[in-house]
Amino acid sequence: MFELNRSNLERSLRAWLEEDIGMGDVTTMTTIPAESQAKGIIHVKDEGIIAGLSVAEAVFALVDPQLRFEAKVNDGAEARYGTVIAEVSGSTRSILLGERLALNLLQRMSGIATRTRQFVDRLEGLPIRLVDTRKTTPGHRMLEKYAVRIGGGHNHRFGLYDAVMIKDNHIKGAGGIREAIVAARTQIPHTMKIEVEVETFEQLEEALTAGPDIVMLDNMSPEQMSQAVQRMKSQAPHIMVEASGNVTLDTVRGIAESGVDVISVGRLTYSVQSLDISLDLNEQKGSAGEKAGRS
Amino acid sequence: MFELNRSNLERSLRAWLEEDIGMGDVTTMTTIPAESQAKGIIHVKDEGIIAGLSVAEAVFALVDPQLRFEAKVNDGAEARYGTVIAEVSGSTRSILLGERLALNLLQRMSGIATRTRQFVDRLEGLPIRLVDTRKTTPGHRMLEKYAVRIGGGHNHRFGLYDAVMIKDNHIKGAGGIREAIVAARTQIPHTMKIEVEVETFEQLEEALTAGPDIVMLDNMSPEQMSQAVQRMKSQAPHIMVEASGNVTLDTVRGIAESGVDVISVGRLTYSVQSLDISLDLNEQKGSAGEKAGRS
Amino acid sequence: MFELNRSNLERSLRAWLEEDIGMGDVTTMTTIPAESQAKGIIHVKDEGIIAGLSVAEAVFALVDPQLRFEAKVNDGAEARYGTVIAEVSGSTRSILLGERLALNLLQRMSGIATRTRQFVDRLEGLPIRLVDTRKTTPGHRMLEKYAVRIGGGHNHRFGLYDAVMIKDNHIKGAGGIREAIVAARTQIPHTMKIEVEVETFEQLEEALTAGPDIVMLDNMSPEQMSQAVQRMKSQAPHIMVEASGNVTLDTVRGIAESGVDVISVGRLTYSVQSLDISLDLNEQKGSAGEKAGRS
Amino acid sequence: MFELNRSNLERSLRAWLEEDIGMGDVTTMTTIPAESQAKGIIHVKDEGIIAGLSVAEAVFALVDPQLRFEAKVNDGAEARYGTVIAEVSGSTRSILLGERLALNLLQRMSGIATRTRQFVDRLEGLPIRLVDTRKTTPGHRMLEKYAVRIGGGHNHRFGLYDAVMIKDNHIKGAGGIREAIVAARTQIPHTMKIEVEVETFEQLEEALTAGPDIVMLDNMSPEQMSQAVQRMKSQAPHIMVEASGNVTLDTVRGIAESGVDVISVGRLTYSVQSLDISLDLNEQKGSAGEKAGRS
Amino acid sequence: MFELNRSNLERSLRAWLEEDIGMGDVTTMTTIPAESQAKGIIHVKDEGIIAGLSVAEAVFALVDPQLRFEAKVNDGAEARYGTVIAEVSGSTRSILLGERLALNLLQRMSGIATRTRQFVDRLEGLPIRLVDTRKTTPGHRMLEKYAVRIGGGHNHRFGLYDAVMIKDNHIKGAGGIREAIVAARTQIPHTMKIEVEVETFEQLEEALTAGPDIVMLDNMSPEQMSQAVQRMKSQAPHIMVEASGNVTLDTVRGIAESGVDVISVGRLTYSVQSLDISLDLNEQKGSAGEKAGRS
Amino acid sequence: MFELNRSNLERSLRAWLEEDIGMGDVTTMTTIPAESQAKGIIHVKDEGIIAGLSVAEAVFALVDPQLRFEAKVNDGAEARYGTVIAEVSGSTRSILLGERLALNLLQRMSGIATRTRQFVDRLEGLPIRLVDTRKTTPGHRMLEKYAVRIGGGHNHRFGLYDAVMIKDNHIKGAGGIREAIVAARTQIPHTMKIEVEVETFEQLEEALTAGPDIVMLDNMSPEQMSQAVQRMKSQAPHIMVEASGNVTLDTVRGIAESGVDVISVGRLTYSVQSLDISLDLNEQKGSAGEKAGRS
Repeated sequence: MFELNRSNLERSLRAWLEEDIGMGDVTTMTTIPAESQAKGIIHVKDEGIIAGLSVAEAVFALVDPQLRFEAKVNDGAEARYGTVIAEVSGSTRSILLGERLALNLLQRMSGIATRTRQFVDRLEGLPIRLVDTRKTTPGHRMLEKYAVRIGGGHNHRFGLYDAVMIKDNHIKGAGGIREAIVAARTQIPHTMKIEVEVETFEQLEEALTAGPDIVMLDNMSPEQMSQAVQRMKSQAPHIMVEASGNVTLDTVRGIAESGVDVISVGRLTYSVQSLDISLDLNEQKGSAGEKAGRS
Repeated sequence: MFELNRSNLERSLRAWLEEDIGMGDVTTMTTIPAESQAKGIIHVKDEGIIAGLSVAEAVFALVDPQLRFEAKVNDGAEARYGTVIAEVSGSTRSILLGERLALNLLQRMSGIATRTRQFVDRLEGLPIRLVDTRKTTPGHRMLEKYAVRIGGGHNHRFGLYDAVMIKDNHIKGAGGIREAIVAARTQIPHTMKIEVEVETFEQLEEALTAGPDIVMLDNMSPEQMSQAVQRMKSQAPHIMVEASGNVTLDTVRGIAESGVDVISVGRLTYSVQSLDISLDLNEQKGSAGEKAGRS
Repeated sequence: MFELNRSNLERSLRAWLEEDIGMGDVTTMTTIPAESQAKGIIHVKDEGIIAGLSVAEAVFALVDPQLRFEAKVNDGAEARYGTVIAEVSGSTRSILLGERLALNLLQRMSGIATRTRQFVDRLEGLPIRLVDTRKTTPGHRMLEKYAVRIGGGHNHRFGLYDAVMIKDNHIKGAGGIREAIVAARTQIPHTMKIEVEVETFEQLEEALTAGPDIVMLDNMSPEQMSQAVQRMKSQAPHIMVEASGNVTLDTVRGIAESGVDVISVGRLTYSVQSLDISLDLNEQKGSAGEKAGRS
Repeated sequence: MFELNRSNLERSLRAWLEEDIGMGDVTTMTTIPAESQAKGIIHVKDEGIIAGLSVAEAVFALVDPQLRFEAKVNDGAEARYGTVIAEVSGSTRSILLGERLALNLLQRMSGIATRTRQFVDRLEGLPIRLVDTRKTTPGHRMLEKYAVRIGGGHNHRFGLYDAVMIKDNHIKGAGGIREAIVAARTQIPHTMKIEVEVETFEQLEEALTAGPDIVMLDNMSPEQMSQAVQRMKSQAPHIMVEASGNVTLDTVRGIAESGVDVISVGRLTYSVQSLDISLDLNEQKGSAGEKAGRS
Repeated sequence: MFELNRSNLERSLRAWLEEDIGMGDVTTMTTIPAESQAKGIIHVKDEGIIAGLSVAEAVFALVDPQLRFEAKVNDGAEARYGTVIAEVSGSTRSILLGERLALNLLQRMSGIATRTRQFVDRLEGLPIRLVDTRKTTPGHRMLEKYAVRIGGGHNHRFGLYDAVMIKDNHIKGAGGIREAIVAARTQIPHTMKIEVEVETFEQLEEALTAGPDIVMLDNMSPEQMSQAVQRMKSQAPHIMVEASGNVTLDTVRGIAESGVDVISVGRLTYSVQSLDISLDLNEQKGSAGEKAGRS
Repeated sequence: MFELNRSNLERSLRAWLEEDIGMGDVTTMTTIPAESQAKGIIHVKDEGIIAGLSVAEAVFALVDPQLRFEAKVNDGAEARYGTVIAEVSGSTRSILLGERLALNLLQRMSGIATRTRQFVDRLEGLPIRLVDTRKTTPGHRMLEKYAVRIGGGHNHRFGLYDAVMIKDNHIKGAGGIREAIVAARTQIPHTMKIEVEVETFEQLEEALTAGPDIVMLDNMSPEQMSQAVQRMKSQAPHIMVEASGNVTLDTVRGIAESGVDVISVGRLTYSVQSLDISLDLNEQKGSAGEKAGRS
């Protein structure tokens, strides 16, 4: 399993906690006794795919290394209304300090995994790969691309630095598709692939003369794509074909059946619907309420 | 106008640029000549309220201080399909390096402003305030709360640090609503308000005995809210009443007509639909294409 | 107890340790054997209120997680000459590395708590709150406001961001007291209070027409304050009255007896006299001295 | 002139501004029009030595590079009640954002320079050097040591890293004064000096056998010091003699007349009285007040 | 030209300047008058290829934005003993503050470019690419890989994140070469290449069954390589062949003639000989020396 | 033993790990099972002095606190081909993530220690100290100066901040050698030494009139040095004499025999040959290979 790399996660989480807590949680610090202990039950009020449990765990560990976090399912699990996905126990104050950030990240990541799974489900049985794009939330790319993987999708390039993607402006800048591909290939590492975006068959033919690794068919109809795929499979079978452009749940299977190898879908990470996940505290021990014999 | 404070924006933007660019934009650096100059036209392919122009400007300034950014409208402007909202001109490479982050932030912030405006429009004529929540994207709170203001909404507290919000768990911890309010008031700055969330009339009455600054009616029906408002206006007219819980475009006016002072809406910033905004490059000068007399 | 939030403390402590240690403590590293163990006794050579024990603990934990720190009293304890407030034991080198920073912070925070307690003692029996200001040491605000709380005082706003404080320049900018209050109220969160500073009765009357949450009487005589309080309690009993301006131990009770609700005192944190606290090392084991049978 | 090195100042200033401003100055942003321009007059309400003008300038430049800052005197100038030391003009909002931090640092640094000058004045005519210690405010060492120089003092070592200072605990650790000096000398750079603290004549004699660069006489009476100086000048004339321990304005001259070369005084930077410095805004142009023809 | 991306360079340079300057350059600040102006001539005392001029420029700009830096040649120029490669003029103090870091980086980068050119020269006329490895200096990878490009080489992958490189341990972990390739391909982005290292012909055959993008022949003799290349060109002509392992100036051409597409050479960046580059100050104006009519 | 100070090491290591790992190690994460455990044997394929074991340990601890690192020798040990210097065991993935950085630092530091030892060996029996310079790798100064100590050398000043070093440009700026020394002495801390570089006997005589702490003889022949040493020992025996300039293994003893106290050698840290150190993984448990009964 291609898991989340955690080497730079902590730095983001620290900044995000500070954004929320600042000079202190004035409510929790004044109403919850320091010695109060509780267990928080993290459960789902929705239906979908869970992603981000290790991130939530890291949030609580940063807030208070004494908290005990226990995942009840693994990332990728299908949750229903009521599914308990994790428990966290220890200082009530600490649980409340980390609650919002942990939930927020779980909700967003699970929302992405859930949407990805919806797309993947439409492609059942087809030899095709569904991938994300660079349209991720600033500061969250690593988390969001991980969530796509958990949902059954794959990743497109991580950033501007790990693959060449030649678009219209680059073609203009270089003086032509062929020129752009050649210029890139002569300068980039041999370990790096070149993808070129084409909008017409004329562009496709020109691209084929320069041998890119991947051709992206941009905003073509499924029929045009099918025709393009046939041309490419006969002419240059080792070049991958990627479809892109306004792919929805309704259109994705039609596009896939054109025979392309990959479909990239911006909305896996763009304008995502978060999954509704809550934390319920119970068993507060050592609270003033308990002592007073009420609530 | 309560504008965006920019004192810590730059740090976020640097991190976000690095997330995307890393070791370098291998496409732009190999296909666009260093001396190529261009103008980028930022235009809208949607309908909505624009927010974030100064943020986009800051992105381009960080990438390359030589770029000239000219906003064509102000934040808060209503844009239609085709509205040009800004132009950026200078090095083609620099424009392309900043493009994705600048657009991403403009799209997200404008999406929030647009949704906020939709809610605000439903409240026309009513003496009420629509506010956001803490359900913002980690790392983006300052930007998202600004976008809500641009859309005509107002902000709820900025974080855990600037107002007390007593919820169920705090009530349990303190041993009662009254106890929680008293505990908070005796410890927090006198410059800070206390809001308490109540779910029942019994809780409301208990809260009134301790004099909070704001009472939030959580998940009540409009009729219950109306009744609660009447009780409060007669009993404690200076306490503000806030309504919360699953507020939608369809329900917001009905809730407002209950007489509450404030409605808080998580979905102003939660699961937001970005506004579609693009950057078109034209007039690349000094590109290889120009030199070669093509493209 | 509204305790110190520790989520961003560590970052400050790291920077402060590096300021002192830099490339290394050339004395300790060359004279103290690596295996030498010792116990440091932190004791007071003065009389006052202790604040900052958890901060000192955090300093030693950062220097060396193996050190054992044991507080002998709690923050808020009254110490006399000779009171042992904590012990730290483990590597002699590590204790010496953290000593200066830990003591420095303890001394400063205890000095603030001690001075605060002196003011609070003068107010015995009066229903009044003594608060600090923003005149804190840059980079130390969270620690200094915590020390004020430990000394029995309360906090004024944390910064420019969590409450409105309208002063002379804002009044000029907005075109009047009333205009300033209205401008602020229409734009700030409903969870935030507005305080306005007035210097004359004319200003007070104008302020009352706009309903601020708090009125600060700036540099008035106790008699004027008393008169202002009477006017306000009859006219607008829910508005808090704060006194400010050159409050000293000699004048504070007179001011308090004017009936104001709050007195803010810059010198709680400004030009503070640190409390004299020392660390004595004893029982160095494994030192060269011990081996040599001397010292 | 050994001026303040500014290479790492900016990082501190950014953090300190953020501490105060956070999500924004809610007062200034809502009451002062964005287009309002003003001039701030920074003047002294006290008597003392000015230090930190370039730091104040850097604060305003960070807040808003468009602000114009003009120092009216140089660091080291003697100011009286009413002396204008600098003017800053430009956006009213920007001036107010930077005001507190700029004044705070000027006040603290000038307070240190002023106290230092008081000590230095007591030493007039004597061939002696007054120096500070490591008892500086965490995070402010560079600024505070600079202020000491401006006041006519000199600096002791910058931190634990740039000179050896052998104290009681190091002597115990090493097994003796002589052993400690030798251990240090054999390991530290030859570019670094060794100072050793002695409390008795016996220790002094032992120290002399190992040839330190500086001997600190700790808490000796002036008579003892005088005797020690004589012994050292006859025996080891190139070793500097430093006096330390509870030096006050009253005792400093007597200590100096003992013939020591250097006197180190913790209270130059410890428990300092800030100098009272204010900023008055005038000539707000473009304010709502001006437009409305009032205030 | 695939130029150095500068988006994260500044952060490294700031840290490196602080490492050298710390609390201040005690020599320059005490001996050079603040008003002294000078011109620094950066010249070469060696023979080689220049790389890093824009980095040196960035160093001086960080130290003092008023300095004027003028490159006299471009990166990639061949320099001889005496070649002037740049001039920097302005404050003498500022030039001296940046001198060491600017030279240090120029020397190191030029040393890498020079060594790379030596290898590239040995390959003249051959259709082969010389590439670096990940054996770069921690913290300097971006600069060192740029210097390799300036010297006429190409880059291997930037880090662990932008291409798969399957080595012995991965093969063991996955249970075989074929299993490792398949495991990687099914999980990584389709925009990413897979390289596999083989040491024997048996491994080569197994690798070929799984279709990697690149095969690295590790530590084979030129004869073995030649045989492997023939096998691959006949069997899988689109798979690139890379040679690796103890490549020296003496052996590189022999290896290249085996027909491999790429040769990777660790010592391009490992144990590099810096190029000797100096800065001479002349024309100090405003120095005390000038005033005194001497030096 | 003057050990490495670790207070700021962690920050560098984090940045260096992120430079290599970025979004994740795509090879290890896809080919090595998460549960796979292994032991890595770190051994030497060269001959030399080991330095940096605690740094390697810190790298692995940052990657994964669960890894167990056991040094088999101490820093300073002489290693031969095959010497096992450390073992690290735990998660195979974690070992592979930290491998490159840990080895890289060990190789570089050991290379410096080894070269230093070579120089030190040439000086056997002479009462002289071999020291490094500021020609260290940016960002690595603390590590490299530690490695010099491990090799038996000593350190010159740590940076521009801890000792005065007057060179030609400072002499010009101050108006003469004597003027420069006096200007520095009157301004720097009394705890700091002054070194002055002289190239001629005339300069030497002038320097002696101002009493520096150290005189550096720059680029003199051994004969000239010998003459200079005699002059100084008779005239000013407490001033240390340092030789500098193109010192090699061949010339170092000759220079030393001139009687100088210290020889500074840039090439201890400049253009260093790394020591060849490798990590071999064995005993992978839980790998797919093991399960499948092969490899």
